Formats: sequence, structure tokens, C-alpha cells
Amino acid sequence: MVNDQIVNIFMFDINKEIESLNWEKEPKGLYEPIAYALASGGKRLRPTLALTAAECIMNGGLLSGDAIENTLPAALALEIFHNFTLLHDDVMDRAEVRRGRPTVHVKWNDNTAILSGDQMLIEAYKQLSKVPSDKIQRTLEMFNEMATGVCEGQQLDVDFEHMSQVSIEDYMHMIELKTSVLIAYAMKIGGYIAGANPSQQEALYRFGLHIGLAFQIQDDILDLYGDPATFGKAIGGDICCNKKTFLLLTALENADPESKAELLGWLMATDRNEEKIAAVKAIYDRLGVREAGETVMEEHTAEALAQLDKLPQNSATERLRELAEKLATRKS
Amino acid sequence: MVNDQIVNIFMFDINKEIESLNWEKEPKGLYEPIAYALASGGKRLRPTLALTAAECIMNGGLLSGDAIENTLPAALALEIFHNFTLLHDDVMDRAEVRRGRPTVHVKWNDNTAILSGDQMLIEAYKQLSKVPSDKIQRTLEMFNEMATGVCEGQQLDVDFEHMSQVSIEDYMHMIELKTSVLIAYAMKIGGYIAGANPSQQEALYRFGLHIGLAFQIQDDILDLYGDPATFGKAIGGDICCNKKTFLLLTALENADPESKAELLGWLMATDRNEEKIAAVKAIYDRLGVREAGETVMEEHTAEALAQLDKLPQNSATERLRELAEKLATRKS
Repeated sequence: MVNDQIVNIFMFDINKEIESLNWEKEPKGLYEPIAYALASGGKRLRPTLALTAAECIMNGGLLSGDAIENTLPAALALEIFHNFTLLHDDVMDRAEVRRGRPTVHVKWNDNTAILSGDQMLIEAYKQLSKVPSDKIQRTLEMFNEMATGVCEGQQLDVDFEHMSQVSIEDYMHMIELKTSVLIAYAMKIGGYIAGANPSQQEALYRFGLHIGLAFQIQDDILDLYGDPATFGKAIGGDICCNKKTFLLLTALENADPESKAELLGWLMATDRNEEKIAAVKAIYDRLGVREAGETVMEEHTAEALAQLDKLPQNSATERLRELAEKLATRKS
Repeated sequence: MVNDQIVNIFMFDINKEIESLNWEKEPKGLYEPIAYALASGGKRLRPTLALTAAECIMNGGLLSGDAIENTLPAALALEIFHNFTLLHDDVMDRAEVRRGRPTVHVKWNDNTAILSGDQMLIEAYKQLSKVPSDKIQRTLEMFNEMATGVCEGQQLDVDFEHMSQVSIEDYMHMIELKTSVLIAYAMKIGGYIAGANPSQQEALYRFGLHIGLAFQIQDDILDLYGDPATFGKAIGGDICCNKKTFLLLTALENADPESKAELLGWLMATDRNEEKIAAVKAIYDRLGVREAGETVMEEHTAEALAQLDKLPQNSATERLRELAEKLATRKS
């Protein structure tokens, strides 16, 4: 909780700015779903990282008003983009609940989620047009690279559903694109606008990339091993739908023939969820996949922390360090 | 045909550039539908207009290689954006055929059309990042305004389906956003990059706006009064699905009580399409809605032509004049 407060010193600015975007305009059918999606809270992780990266580079202390003004449009663009991807992903995945509320395509309909999502992507680029003019071209290029990565990652995730064999390496490549590239570019773009030199930009990028990878693997672990009281969704959901997570792919890769046959047998079961979760978990425990995941997660956290040594050391760098450590030990 | 060749002197450059975009990359599920959508031809009207506007402003003759290079990225962005809207609109409208081929969501599936469409929108912005750096911020702003207009127009079009009363004024506002704003900004952006002053930019914008409106009303007329041999789709489709076109709304607005009752009666019929088309057409003929449409179309064409007087007079201006006149007399 203390860490939450330290990391999110920009939460007030971010939420104030998001609230100041006026969505009470016509046609309501286009803008109300956008207001709904953006008001749903969330950690505001990406804009917070962009602002913290800027602060780390800029003055080794709190960002001044002007510096926040320079960085905030790109930070908001990243947050709006992230929420755009959730809108469209929820249509594609037929997800019904997001942050405890009905998803846009459930509350309205598919067409609304498609069109309001499109407008959100355009709104992200509207924010980018407010980036200081000498930084706008490069920021646009980086943002486009990021956005392309996220779409490619989503496509790979869809492709994996239909593939019988997915390697751990393929999986890591997919989550790098789908999750980490956005976090990495949040760091890099924030730093770039604040004047980071190329090697600092690279360190910021790699910090984001590695905490993103650690974050996603931790997500896979918590889905099964999280505390039901704090995790917020049903435990074992990934097992029920045979999602190709780090745990399942590691189990398939490490299993002896007998365990593998048992595991593949359970993947065919679609009607006995409670029993399936318990049985698959027992196989995972026997094969030590949780520990394997935690090891990889810790490696990425360490790699992220190592990047921070290449950056100016100040209170912002310290908050990034705490954030990386917090992500690695989070329970929800 | 002669006019086609005159107007499309840029067709070669545009198609060469579109072909040079490399879509043969991974993941194929993301990029193949984009290649398919962009290879489907079409008139390339929007990039042609952007390049012609640039030429009109720049040197009163053919664009030089450098000048084409400066304008082409924005021109391509407009073409890619236009094709992105078709991909998503076809999902929302459940349209099965586009330019004589199956639509993307039919050939692949809805999720593919959504995600590849998203990537196309990002690709449009990738082109914008190549606009000369001193022009990029303003170009991005104009493009975003355009894109927002198109989404708002699409939303209004959806809203109109469920509204019992839509005025001609509402309809003109909707088609201005959905169709004309993109053509208007194609002109304005092309001219802006070539160095147009503000009053020239305004004239270019208004030229595009008015030919767009004339174009859409002509579209509504051709849907019923076009020659089946040259029109390319079934005649009377708008009547079958009760689409609120300029013709229907004018008929409802101008009809005596008896004709109105007859017309509303036919709107309820869903099973006798041949008969319905003939009967509604007879009502339209009696009320003179075709002539009303042609009058409004000619007014917009005249308004567009009047804008050209405010621009440098050269071979590009002449081609824009021919284009406006051709659109007003087109048969398909």
C-alpha cells in the first residue's frame, strides 16, 4: 500500500487530465462508451511510467508543471491506447467483465465496441499531436512501432489458440509484443520527451520490457496460485479454458511421458472444471512449474533493475526500483 | 474514359507505392487481410485528390519527383484510412461483397477484420510520420479531425437506422461527416503540404466538401436510377432495406398525406422486393424526388467549381474542374 502511494504520485494529474477530456458531446452513441471505458479506473500504470521516466531523466526530483505539461499528452495517449486495445480484445475474446463491470460490447453491442474503440485509437493520436513540435515526429514513430507490436502480439495470441505446439520461446515473444512493448515504449517515450540520450532511452526501454515480461508471468502464476480473497477473479480460469500460459507450456515441455499423457488427457475435459483444476495443479506441482515461472520472473526483474544503474540516480529511479520489486511480489 | 485518364495521372505513382508496402511478413493472419484489402483497386480518389491539390498549389504544372515524395505519404495515409473504414464498416453492416470480392470478415472472420482493420489505421499514421517534419504536427491535427468526423458520421448513420424521423438537414450533416470530410481533408492536406496559404486551404477544403456531397447524393440516385449494365450492383438495394437515403427522406418530406401513407406502407413490406422497388419508384417519380436530388447535386457541384476560381489556374485546377463535372454526370 505504501508502495502504491509512492509509485502513483502522478495519479492525481493523470486522472484530472482524463476527467478533463470532454466526452459529453454528440453523437452520444460514439462518446459515452469511451467515457465509460476510461472512467473504469485501473492502475494507470503506463502513463505513470511515462511520467516517472521523464522525471528520472529531467531533474532528479519532482517534475515541474511545465515538464508535466510536455509529457502528459504522450502519457495520456498511452493510457487511451491501452484502453482501446481492451475494448477490441474484449470483443474478440467475448469477455463479459472488465474491472468488475460489464464490457462495452456487453453493455452496448459489438458494433459500438468496434466504432468507439476506433475513435479511442484516434483520440490517442490526438493527444500525440500535442507533443512538443520538435519531438513529435520521433514520438509518433515510436508510438506506431509500439501499436504495431501490440496488434502483432494479439494476432499471435489468437494464432496460438489453434496451434498444437507452442514453444516457451514463442510464448515469450508473444507476451513481449502483446504486453511488454507498450510498457517499454511508455518508459522510452517519457524519457525521450524529457531529453534522454540514446543509451538512456535504451535502458528505459529495456527496464519496461523486462518488468512487462515479469508482470505477465506473475499474472499466469497468480491465475492458479493467487489468493482467492485478493486475486479478484476465479482461480484456475486459465486451466479451464486450456489457455497456453507459461505454466502449461512449461509443464508440456518438462513433463515425462506419463505426466504429459495425463496432462493432455485433462486438456480434453470440458465438463469437470473443479476436478480438472485440482488435477492439473497437482501435475504442475509435481513438475515444479510454479518455481520455474518464479525463477524466470526473478531473472526478468533482476534484468530490469540492472537497467536502472545506467540511469541518473534520483527519487524517480528509486520509485522505479520499488515498482519493479513490488510487481515481482504482488498478490493481485 | 478520357477524363479518367486525365484525372488519374497519379494512379501509377499511387499504385506503385501501395505495392511497395511490404505485407509479406509475420504474423500472416494480421497482414494478409491488409494486402487483400489494399490490392482490391478502387478509384484511389482520395490520394489522387491530395496529389492534385498539391500540384495545383505548387507549380502550376506536373509535380516534380521531390514534390511527389513530400505529398505521397499523406496521400497514402488517406487511402489506407479509407480502406480501414471499409473493413470495419463491412463488419458492422454485415456486408458480404466489396468491389466484387468477398469482404474480409467473410473471407476470414470478424476478429480478423477488427484486428487487421486496427493495424491499417496504425499503418495510416505510420505514413503520416513520414510527412516533412515542419508540416507533421498540423497534418496530424487535420488528419485526426478528419478521422473523428468519419467515425461520428458512421455513428450517425447507425443512429438513423433506429430513428423514425430524420430530416434532410440531419442527413446532409451525416453524409458530410461520413463521406465528404475525408475528401475535403484530402484536398486541404495535399495543398497544405505543398504550401497553400490559409484561404487556398479553405477553398481546397470546400471544393472537396461539395464534390463529396454531390458524390453521395448521386450515389443515392444511381442506386435506383442507374443503368444495371454499368452500375455494378443490384438496382433498388436501398429501397429493399429501407435505407434512409436522400430520395426516401425527400419523398417523406414532400409527400401529400396519401402518398406518405402509401410509402410508409411499403416500408413495412419485407418479402416482395421486386414489387416494392417498382411501387416506391413510382411514388418517387410522382413526387419528383430524382429531380430534387439532381438539383441539390448540381448546386453542390456549382459550389465546388466556384471554389476553384480562388485557386491558381493551371493544368491541375483544370483536372479538378473536369473531375467535379464528371462526378456529377457519372453513371456508375
